[in-house]
Amino acid sequence: MSVTAPKGFRAAGVTAGLKSTGKRDVALVVNDGPSAAAAAVFTSNRCIANPVIWSKQVLADGTVSAVVLNSGGANCYTGAFGFATTHHTAEAVADAIGVSAGDVVVCSTGLIGVGDETFRRHVLDGVALAADVLEDGAAAGDRAAEAIMTTDTVAKTATREGPGYTIGAMAKGAGMLAPGLATMLVVITTDADLESAGLDAALRAATRTTFDRLDSDGCMSTNDTVVLLASGASGVTPGAEFTQLLTELCAELCRKLQQDAEGASHDVTITTVGAASEQDAEDVSRAVARSNLFKAAIFGNDPNWGRVLAAAGTTDATFDPLVLDVTINGVMVCKEGTPHEPADRVDLTPRDTLVEIDLHAGTDTATILTNDLTHDYVHENSAYAS
Amino acid sequence: MSVTAPKGFRAAGVTAGLKSTGKRDVALVVNDGPSAAAAAVFTSNRCIANPVIWSKQVLADGTVSAVVLNSGGANCYTGAFGFATTHHTAEAVADAIGVSAGDVVVCSTGLIGVGDETFRRHVLDGVALAADVLEDGAAAGDRAAEAIMTTDTVAKTATREGPGYTIGAMAKGAGMLAPGLATMLVVITTDADLESAGLDAALRAATRTTFDRLDSDGCMSTNDTVVLLASGASGVTPGAEFTQLLTELCAELCRKLQQDAEGASHDVTITTVGAASEQDAEDVSRAVARSNLFKAAIFGNDPNWGRVLAAAGTTDATFDPLVLDVTINGVMVCKEGTPHEPADRVDLTPRDTLVEIDLHAGTDTATILTNDLTHDYVHENSAYAS
Repeated sequence: MSVTAPKGFRAAGVTAGLKSTGKRDVALVVNDGPSAAAAAVFTSNRCIANPVIWSKQVLADGTVSAVVLNSGGANCYTGAFGFATTHHTAEAVADAIGVSAGDVVVCSTGLIGVGDETFRRHVLDGVALAADVLEDGAAAGDRAAEAIMTTDTVAKTATREGPGYTIGAMAKGAGMLAPGLATMLVVITTDADLESAGLDAALRAATRTTFDRLDSDGCMSTNDTVVLLASGASGVTPGAEFTQLLTELCAELCRKLQQDAEGASHDVTITTVGAASEQDAEDVSRAVARSNLFKAAIFGNDPNWGRVLAAAGTTDATFDPLVLDVTINGVMVCKEGTPHEPADRVDLTPRDTLVEIDLHAGTDTATILTNDLTHDYVHENSAYAS
Repeated sequence: MSVTAPKGFRAAGVTAGLKSTGKRDVALVVNDGPSAAAAAVFTSNRCIANPVIWSKQVLADGTVSAVVLNSGGANCYTGAFGFATTHHTAEAVADAIGVSAGDVVVCSTGLIGVGDETFRRHVLDGVALAADVLEDGAAAGDRAAEAIMTTDTVAKTATREGPGYTIGAMAKGAGMLAPGLATMLVVITTDADLESAGLDAALRAATRTTFDRLDSDGCMSTNDTVVLLASGASGVTPGAEFTQLLTELCAELCRKLQQDAEGASHDVTITTVGAASEQDAEDVSRAVARSNLFKAAIFGNDPNWGRVLAAAGTTDATFDPLVLDVTINGVMVCKEGTPHEPADRVDLTPRDTLVEIDLHAGTDTATILTNDLTHDYVHENSAYAS
């Protein structure tokens, strides 16, 4: 089940010719209401793709009737022609389903610089095909989730049941996973009845500790979009549990993105505890997550805790460097800044890897999810465009 | 020629048993004066090794009589015992050559967490051996340069001749090359006659645009030290050209460090022009230098300019994202934010790679030197400790 799990949504995923493999490459998600409330978060990159420029404007009034997504081209740095393509795409969706183009979110993913006339023709063909086969069943949601895959090896979906309402979601992303956000497109639907302000607050709360803390390779995308649509079709106005359920759903999608990260052989959870603030804890965890030396060591099953500390030392977090502890997969290899349990006791053969840094400076904590740096990562990312 | 090129210096490089290969691993450089003026810059990492804690104190009065350096162990996060080892090492040098321990700089390089009793014994053995064979010839300088190598494949030295004086240097470093500084030990000697304040100003000016802009893999070391010793033995007080010559010498060493970076197959020069400030230009160049996706693309001979812009967009530099130009090896692949010359015109087969980003926001410029992300980098850094 995916974006069609809640009542009031139809979806489609079709083959429009953007992917040379002939796989599905255009997805459409339509909110049939009665409500069209929505919220979204976008990449914090300043260099953004045409669909992001467009969709930020669409979200300005908190109303979204449909989301159209394509893989096979990011439509980023494609000039005025590329922006016109996004505009035409929204208008084509609007015409097909009888809504305003100003209520259609557009998402694209693929190579930057790809967005020529062929790209435009394929996307518009895809919109026509998708509009014809919109359905509200589980299979339609699955087809949509499949159509947004790029280097993903599996389609990523999640659902949560609240009291009297449902939340459904699909996500794509397999690299360039970094804060604010990542090469990530996520559509979340719910039949709960919430105004856009309430959706926005819930979505920001949920992404702050989930997608924003997934940092696979330190690289930030130009196209990231996470959009939340509420149809209100359940007639239920949810309570505070909605944010909790939404956060759980986002966390599940994060884990699925991490587990499918390009070329990774370890899923690394880096938790900093004993911090003076949550921001300090996040900064330290993220610095470790971005150390290529640390990430290469984990690939080599080498519990090289020196590289953890060398990364921690690049931050402004409050701590005394001489009393830091480092624990890897349950073995405290460094205590108070001195070698402690023998590093050869650490078993790094499981894919799941846990690194804990204790700053002994307070009570706050934060976790970053990352991956190791592998030969397959280098291979996939050196050969992607060619 | 190396640190013994200027008058007034003796050096040694000996085998003390720290390297399992039996290669030289302890170096000693002695300033016989008449002056003992000195300056140094250290890693800006907050997690620093015992020799750095010690040597920062030594430099407080601007007087240095000798520098002792070892490979085969970083003596970092080795606790009180490790600091005592550094202290004993300085005292052993002081006793052997008849100076104050407070004027002996200590540098260590190798694995973090290595600094036990065996390490101490080997280092102290090395000091005794080195003190016995101090010489002022070129061969002695070369032996010292050899003794500080870790994963370096070549010893790195450089000299410059000023009017009536000489500058000589040795450096080690082959990875973890990042600002402020890198896994880098550099000893620079001169027989010019300058006070420590003048040396400090010249050294900071030189390193600001050289070692601080070498960013091989974004990782910052715990042990970096660049120390400049002046013997005054030439009797010449240099003019403003000293800083220029020193900068040239540091730039030459930077290139040698870049060219020997672990596993690299491209030496990448990233220049940002048209910036509103030098800091903006540096920030953009460095963001690109730290993008694993960009670095993997260069390894794959793929002129993926989208990854250049995606990295630029993560900075706070002043620019309009829609008018950026990107030129790779002389081919302007992106002009005013739109695809321009065909990317397949870019020849990335040479090791030297030039990337230029024009922000169209001013007249300032800055260059960062980096390397690509290769299978060999992953291999070397996943297998180093084991």
